[in-house]
Amino acid sequence: MAPPREEPAGAPRPAKGALTPRQQDFPRWYQEVVARAELADNGPVRGTMVIRPWGFAIWERLQAALDGRIKAAGAENAYFPLFIPESFLRLEAEHVEGFSPELAVVTHGGGKQLEEPVVVRPTSETVINSYFAKWVQSHRDLPLLINQWANVVRWELRPRLFLRTTEFLWQEGHTAHATEADARAYALRILRDVYVDTMERVAGIPVVTGHKTARERFAGATRTWTCEGMMGDGKALQMGTSHELGQNFARVFGIQYADEQGVLQYAWQTSWGVSTRLIGALVMAHGDDAGLRLPPDLAPVEVVVLLVRDEGGARAAATQLVDELVAAGHRVRLDDRVDTSFGRRSVDWELKGVPARVEVGPRDLAEGIVTVVTRHDRSKSSVPVGGATVAVSEALAATGAALYDEAAATLARRTTDVVDPSQAAEAAAGGFVRVPWAALGTDGEAALAAQAVSVRCLQTADGSLADADTPEEDLVAVVARAY
Amino acid sequence: MAPPREEPAGAPRPAKGALTPRQQDFPRWYQEVVARAELADNGPVRGTMVIRPWGFAIWERLQAALDGRIKAAGAENAYFPLFIPESFLRLEAEHVEGFSPELAVVTHGGGKQLEEPVVVRPTSETVINSYFAKWVQSHRDLPLLINQWANVVRWELRPRLFLRTTEFLWQEGHTAHATEADARAYALRILRDVYVDTMERVAGIPVVTGHKTARERFAGATRTWTCEGMMGDGKALQMGTSHELGQNFARVFGIQYADEQGVLQYAWQTSWGVSTRLIGALVMAHGDDAGLRLPPDLAPVEVVVLLVRDEGGARAAATQLVDELVAAGHRVRLDDRVDTSFGRRSVDWELKGVPARVEVGPRDLAEGIVTVVTRHDRSKSSVPVGGATVAVSEALAATGAALYDEAAATLARRTTDVVDPSQAAEAAAGGFVRVPWAALGTDGEAALAAQAVSVRCLQTADGSLADADTPEEDLVAVVARAY
Repeated sequence: MAPPREEPAGAPRPAKGALTPRQQDFPRWYQEVVARAELADNGPVRGTMVIRPWGFAIWERLQAALDGRIKAAGAENAYFPLFIPESFLRLEAEHVEGFSPELAVVTHGGGKQLEEPVVVRPTSETVINSYFAKWVQSHRDLPLLINQWANVVRWELRPRLFLRTTEFLWQEGHTAHATEADARAYALRILRDVYVDTMERVAGIPVVTGHKTARERFAGATRTWTCEGMMGDGKALQMGTSHELGQNFARVFGIQYADEQGVLQYAWQTSWGVSTRLIGALVMAHGDDAGLRLPPDLAPVEVVVLLVRDEGGARAAATQLVDELVAAGHRVRLDDRVDTSFGRRSVDWELKGVPARVEVGPRDLAEGIVTVVTRHDRSKSSVPVGGATVAVSEALAATGAALYDEAAATLARRTTDVVDPSQAAEAAAGGFVRVPWAALGTDGEAALAAQAVSVRCLQTADGSLADADTPEEDLVAVVARAY
Repeated sequence: MAPPREEPAGAPRPAKGALTPRQQDFPRWYQEVVARAELADNGPVRGTMVIRPWGFAIWERLQAALDGRIKAAGAENAYFPLFIPESFLRLEAEHVEGFSPELAVVTHGGGKQLEEPVVVRPTSETVINSYFAKWVQSHRDLPLLINQWANVVRWELRPRLFLRTTEFLWQEGHTAHATEADARAYALRILRDVYVDTMERVAGIPVVTGHKTARERFAGATRTWTCEGMMGDGKALQMGTSHELGQNFARVFGIQYADEQGVLQYAWQTSWGVSTRLIGALVMAHGDDAGLRLPPDLAPVEVVVLLVRDEGGARAAATQLVDELVAAGHRVRLDDRVDTSFGRRSVDWELKGVPARVEVGPRDLAEGIVTVVTRHDRSKSSVPVGGATVAVSEALAATGAALYDEAAATLARRTTDVVDPSQAAEAAAGGFVRVPWAALGTDGEAALAAQAVSVRCLQTADGSLADADTPEEDLVAVVARAY
């Protein structure tokens, strides 16, 4: 197994070139941002990744935003084992068919060959539902709402950091309900109140929502609801899914409850998850040719105070400003590495996406001013020293909305409607394409797939989610190239 | 692989017996508390565990306490891969010898046999240090202070929930320093400011600290510092360790830095970890014959308001009290399951260790009072309805200190000093035994081991940590039976 191939981003870097422009080579730009912003590195085993402190701190903030919303939706956190007996996976036919090509299998433990090999969980429906069968007895035990934060493994042949990795971190929710309507309502509650809310309000990424076609559905689900974001190159990224599982797993694992009349009924279930892939979404949805642009809510550091030169009282002024910004409730870092050039440090903080930067130098200070730079529009303004904290607070307050608005405008601009499915593939070169599902159909979907274009979701004509009784012929397919 | 064997604690339980008294059978009592308090269940693969919501909520609070202290000590969180190439582990001779009997090995991935098998991490020294070698170049890169929260796997032949499980959750810190003195100071800072502080002030468990003998040292360390707690049966539980690794891993992985003179030097390192074993420590250090007793800081619910009967305005009074307690900053749950007997519900909340309970019933209310029950001493008092919130706040404030004081008194009472090593094994039947290390020695240690008694740590005569220059003959060995 070869050692990691990427340039170590923490080491002194070779002659500093600019990033590859996005227009020129978007995948290469992505790879460079991930490395130079010190988000992640390739692991020693193919397809695995090392999430570096800057990337992990973003993940911790995303986790906190999601976890609070998951708990507000009534789910409780728990933890189920990494190892699943191979036999468990075989119980649900579609499920094992979907996952078996991606499994990592442990054949030896404690120095001996195992009697039955165990798989490293690719997802936990099987192991969790084997416990639901024990815990659910009566209608009073429902709904049962469980979430876990965990690592999962799906062997990847074409790995890309954060987007497709052999091991990734995620949360997976698993629930059981008394009725199909309850299960559907909860799957949609998670989609809207947890996923869409976090993606749009916290990450500033507008998402297109709908349900998957049979071809794209989760292995074992009856309906998969999805959030699809548009990346900087117009491609789609599936950012989160919420599945209705019907009674498929309940029948296989025997999850039955006694209803109010004492009659045994199978439970209706959901599962739902988002992963470290969201970090990749942040990079690709907001990044520009200078690097990452972070929404303040997710930035490990909201504002960096950059000491230009350690002269003329600049250090004292910078330190005082840091104290003021901390007192104003911001996450602040002082960059006083004056032995590194001012230019290189500025470029580094732009690469890392820190939303605001205050440059404190002796020349400006002599005039009583400092320079405030906002990352999202790279605008600079000179403000009186005493007004810097207010200026930064205002800049941060405006950044989140500005990033969202910019992404929403791009999504609108790069989404086209076509009536004729034969135009869809070409139109998808530029972004998302909406085409009537009645005209496209499963044959049209297969034809698009041959051109690397997929149906991201089905929705109604006005872009909302289909109801249980929306006729198929009223649906619109959103098609795109996708990660 | 057999399905989990324990009684599902969430299901209606068989005829409710009291817990087995601790005096009668401590291991059985432990197993019953873990099951009935719904802390954990056995996983389907031998030795693995399901951490249920009540147990996981305790872990989340422990994590938060530890994580804040780890960050205050300057370490940053990151995430390294679950899978480690087998060859990495072989690089450090003692390390591989220590861990190879416990490894889980993945031989197949993505439907194919792997060219090189990968092991599921038993600990991450090897993979993390392979990256440190890339990230550390100059003395300016030091200290490098990294922590990760992760699952690890060590195949267990005699598993016991939380105490020894094939998979467990933990944090592992890994650091690199310029000098041996810096590394030692940091290992001790983690021991004192993170581990001892959390164990004593948050978990209320007094710990004995010292360093391990060569026999008990971590595989690959030059010195292992440890925190040992006394459980309710007088046995020791190793609750956390902080290792000095010398330059062992730095030499193997090539972690070198250019010092201020530009000369390449090997870094000095530490690693340190605590795990879900701490939940087992909480159960065994504080539990009584009625179940778990939780320190308020770690209790998922600090106070339960128990509606005795839904009559005479009791529900309204209970709801109002919940609101008042929430407004006072407490974590509160309303138990209004009046179709379950009052007695059974009381027993359940005692089992789960909730520190305070307020019983709100129509008869008491008619007299303007409610009953406040504190879990740690099972005392009951009648208080005016309007004074309940203050009474609960006071009871909670007193509980943490009371639990610590009780545990500290037990530790003092059950620790004896002996001069003659031949008396140590017998004395260890009752608790911890302090014996001069010069008299015991490695031969005496081996003789004790044959009687299932081990040296938990070495310390000075006054119980403090040895300095670098404390002579061996001044050390005292703390010996005990241990989990």
